[in-house]
Amino acid sequence: MEFKKEQLANGLVIIGEVNKSAKSAAVGFFVKTGSRDETKKINGVSHFLEHMLFKGTEKLTALQVNEAFDRTGAQFNAFTSEENTVFYAAVLPEYLLEVTNLWTELMRPALRNEDFDIEKDVIKQEIAMYKDLPSFDVTDRCRKLHFDSHPCGNSVLGTEESIDRLTADQMRAYFANRYAPNNIVLAVAGNFDWDQICSTAQSRCSIWQKRPASRKLDQAPGSKKKERLEKSNLAREHICLMSPGLSAQDPKRFAASLLATIVGDDVGSRFFWELVDKALAETATMQFGAMDGTGVFCSYIRCSNENLPKVLETVRAVFSSLSSDGITEDELTKAKNKILSALVIKNELPMGRLVDLGFNWTYLQRYRTVADDINAIKAVTVNNIHSLIEKFKLGDFTQLSLGPAQ
Amino acid sequence: MEFKKEQLANGLVIIGEVNKSAKSAAVGFFVKTGSRDETKKINGVSHFLEHMLFKGTEKLTALQVNEAFDRTGAQFNAFTSEENTVFYAAVLPEYLLEVTNLWTELMRPALRNEDFDIEKDVIKQEIAMYKDLPSFDVTDRCRKLHFDSHPCGNSVLGTEESIDRLTADQMRAYFANRYAPNNIVLAVAGNFDWDQICSTAQSRCSIWQKRPASRKLDQAPGSKKKERLEKSNLAREHICLMSPGLSAQDPKRFAASLLATIVGDDVGSRFFWELVDKALAETATMQFGAMDGTGVFCSYIRCSNENLPKVLETVRAVFSSLSSDGITEDELTKAKNKILSALVIKNELPMGRLVDLGFNWTYLQRYRTVADDINAIKAVTVNNIHSLIEKFKLGDFTQLSLGPAQ
Repeated sequence: MEFKKEQLANGLVIIGEVNKSAKSAAVGFFVKTGSRDETKKINGVSHFLEHMLFKGTEKLTALQVNEAFDRTGAQFNAFTSEENTVFYAAVLPEYLLEVTNLWTELMRPALRNEDFDIEKDVIKQEIAMYKDLPSFDVTDRCRKLHFDSHPCGNSVLGTEESIDRLTADQMRAYFANRYAPNNIVLAVAGNFDWDQICSTAQSRCSIWQKRPASRKLDQAPGSKKKERLEKSNLAREHICLMSPGLSAQDPKRFAASLLATIVGDDVGSRFFWELVDKALAETATMQFGAMDGTGVFCSYIRCSNENLPKVLETVRAVFSSLSSDGITEDELTKAKNKILSALVIKNELPMGRLVDLGFNWTYLQRYRTVADDINAIKAVTVNNIHSLIEKFKLGDFTQLSLGPAQ
Repeated sequence: MEFKKEQLANGLVIIGEVNKSAKSAAVGFFVKTGSRDETKKINGVSHFLEHMLFKGTEKLTALQVNEAFDRTGAQFNAFTSEENTVFYAAVLPEYLLEVTNLWTELMRPALRNEDFDIEKDVIKQEIAMYKDLPSFDVTDRCRKLHFDSHPCGNSVLGTEESIDRLTADQMRAYFANRYAPNNIVLAVAGNFDWDQICSTAQSRCSIWQKRPASRKLDQAPGSKKKERLEKSNLAREHICLMSPGLSAQDPKRFAASLLATIVGDDVGSRFFWELVDKALAETATMQFGAMDGTGVFCSYIRCSNENLPKVLETVRAVFSSLSSDGITEDELTKAKNKILSALVIKNELPMGRLVDLGFNWTYLQRYRTVADDINAIKAVTVNNIHSLIEKFKLGDFTQLSLGPAQ
């Protein structure tokens, strides 16, 4: 395993971790932009742009883009979150250069008016579709309720209205600023030749224009509001809880992940034993979401409508026993083993490694080995977790519940 | 990479593929039983049993089972399909023996009446929950419509009624027959010690009683029925199409996968270009499902209600152009690259390798290397695909559509 780094004059960072024993390789462009970098007026533009990158360049039609990927057999995709837009592909090593070349081209898309108009319908269909997914819907709405006017509350997809209003020119202006090379990391992991990747990036990306691209990093205390919404199409009650957590830059982020695992891992957590195993809820999980300069603890619970009061009472009891009695050494050891094995298994595959490699650079501007993360997790103590519990009141949450009409 | 095989006197097969350079290891019990092995009376019992295995043994409570997994940090789970129930775990190599030991214990569960009664509610909640997932619901209903009275049409979850009626004694009787050692394969992949696994299996599983465990393998021509159902809670139209395919034992199964990829891969397929790229549908995919002695081509399409007629017309045009004009060399090459890279990437991880290893033994009673599969895929010709198109009329399908009330 060997780490490599280069930076072009225009600010584009290229990083790579070479693993000659891997059977595949993965490449990704990590663009530091997402819905939190949007104004209300252009809400949804980051995700819209993600779609538009597949519509082609001055030289390539969408059909040719698709055919170019198809030739390589790449497993490729992209995703947009509140703060990142990532384009990636995993391929057999012999196709890595071809697929990297292709991504470098796509990162300078044509953004044609005709494509923009057609894609508007696709995006609006996607928004409509997510209305059929209550677990997504409730989280999206709760994020808005929690972050209030803070831009981290912006919906990634945007709304039907914001997408309707969006113009191609607004998109192009956003693109020019946010897809500036100094706001992008090109990362590669697995079995590949570093020099070839660098010379490809150099010849393809050097002409990209540097631009100022900053991000507001205000703290978000969270609204702590509580709401229930009704939807006639629902059979179950979907509940989302959010409270402030710490940031992706905070050294205590590993302790926060361990805490969320202890409280709300799929199985074996306090939520699991108190809610799922007792058949009060079908699902009850908590995740810690580390973000740029901020963060959230986010729980999602699904249960029958009649169980709602009992579920909320149980959740409060779980949080209050955490505050009064803390956690045990045994719980911490188990959570560590879970997180450690997930980490090692994920990073065993070049595609999984790529994600950690890219995000570590995006958030920290530094390289961390898998061993660095393993050691940081192993070093967390019960007292570290207790300090977190004291500082971040999990019981003091924003709550959105989405359920059937009563 | 080294393949190993043992068989206990009671019929339990133990197979392993040792890869000393892997950073993790995976173990799984592959039980050859699923909803197609159930009668209508006990429909859902296989999946119910999968849940019950986590409820403990004569020696272990459910809490202790969970704690035992937690200690190892295993990524563990189980799934039940129409014809298999699989219990698996991926762990760091130092925990493999511990987790294998645990699974051998769990494979002889206590099946306590109290647990059975509580778990009934959990299963019924799961059934209710899937009513909120239209893509699942439509596929489940279409499978029933397509297979008609053939047991492959049985729902994996069962119905609220069948679960209500099910008794603990019926479950125990089913368990005794279907979880006989001669109906189970224990598979291990990744970085592990073969001799240790064998002696664990020997000492733990040798007392399991052999029993006759067969399966009906009738052919299923498919009903070709067409139905539309309305659900007031839906915003979109969900369409499932099924037609007969070939079996998991058929050497032409690789050609069938390639055909389904050409027609209905997520991106770059005929469905993609005719339906998704043209914004007629949000999703349009086809998959080939190889089963024991039978198989299906299964398509899933989601679109607006108003687009439904146009979507179905386009689907028919896609199938009819396949029959009249066939496919191109270029399409086949691309499909091969996709399937090859997915295969290699999946098998790079011990957990992914485990699944192929276990299922190859379950269906074929033989070991296939990744290279065997790669070569079989590379050998498929355009003419092979044309023979399939001629034999399996994709346009002659069972159709179920689930959409909003009109």
